[in-house]
Amino acid sequence: MSERTFRTAVTIGVSLDGFIARPDGDIEWLTGYSEEEVGDTGYQEFMAGIDTLAMGRNTYEKVLTFGFWPYEGKRVAVLSTTLTTDDARITVYRSLDELLAGLTDSGAENVYVDGGRMVQTFLREGLLDELTITTAPVLIGSGIPLFGELGGKDIRLTLQSAKALGAGFTQATYAL
Amino acid sequence: MSERTFRTAVTIGVSLDGFIARPDGDIEWLTGYSEEEVGDTGYQEFMAGIDTLAMGRNTYEKVLTFGFWPYEGKRVAVLSTTLTTDDARITVYRSLDELLAGLTDSGAENVYVDGGRMVQTFLREGLLDELTITTAPVLIGSGIPLFGELGGKDIRLTLQSAKALGAGFTQATYAL
Repeated sequence: MSERTFRTAVTIGVSLDGFIARPDGDIEWLTGYSEEEVGDTGYQEFMAGIDTLAMGRNTYEKVLTFGFWPYEGKRVAVLSTTLTTDDARITVYRSLDELLAGLTDSGAENVYVDGGRMVQTFLREGLLDELTITTAPVLIGSGIPLFGELGGKDIRLTLQSAKALGAGFTQATYAL
Repeated sequence: MSERTFRTAVTIGVSLDGFIARPDGDIEWLTGYSEEEVGDTGYQEFMAGIDTLAMGRNTYEKVLTFGFWPYEGKRVAVLSTTLTTDDARITVYRSLDELLAGLTDSGAENVYVDGGRMVQTFLREGLLDELTITTAPVLIGSGIPLFGELGGKDIRLTLQSAKALGAGFTQATYAL
């Protein structure tokens, strides 16, 4: 851990019941609010400080459906044991160790860890430095959870800030 | 719904990953902070406005392990299809309909709905008016979840307040 050459952070939206997407990947319940309603989530500022994204295949494939590439000018590392692609905007890694080595080798300094399984992996392995959760005021009942099993050990966090946004959203940032 | 003669509210502590207790019912991860550290959670004020508690058998049996009865002067309604007891401090109801009729008949005005399954039932049935969630800055990985399936429909809430407490706790109150 002491040799890690980059910082890692997550900023992610969840339902009040802790899901990042419906079972089919739908996030309209989260994104169906105007920026005007919600106010400044800090996302632009967060992204401005990021040089590299690390995500899993599911998140990568979700991003492809957006119709535009939101990571222009950033390195994007995708962890997948199966993905084959000639998409030159990303680098695919077959294991977490390869991904971490790749981040170091590419000179990554501030890495945005995105997607549920990726966040869970980084949390479980003690590889996450900061976590910002933006909670929508809705219960969706089922879906893809942000958090998962931790292998039997608790993870304590340090609250750095908590606030209400607009439209009933709340946001909390934790250091790990 | 328009005939309901009482208001219902929940105040409950959860881990950041949404559990109200470990799989074995342990809540030391939540209660192992001093009041001095956490500050005023508003619990005393909340309880002062409550005349009746509604809970399931699991929660009732958990309360019995406390070694003292925290509901002196309140009516306590326990929903259980199986519980037999001569505990005169509680009234047992065999179905939700019986419980609701009992609350009305007993003149309940402000009801504290407690326990995971009870909260889920009241939410799903549209019987909950207010929800205060106090979130501890810890991930415990597994346990008894606060929220559950909603039968396919979303529930939108209205944020009333959100704030940071001490020791890294946050608290949000929603109206339904």
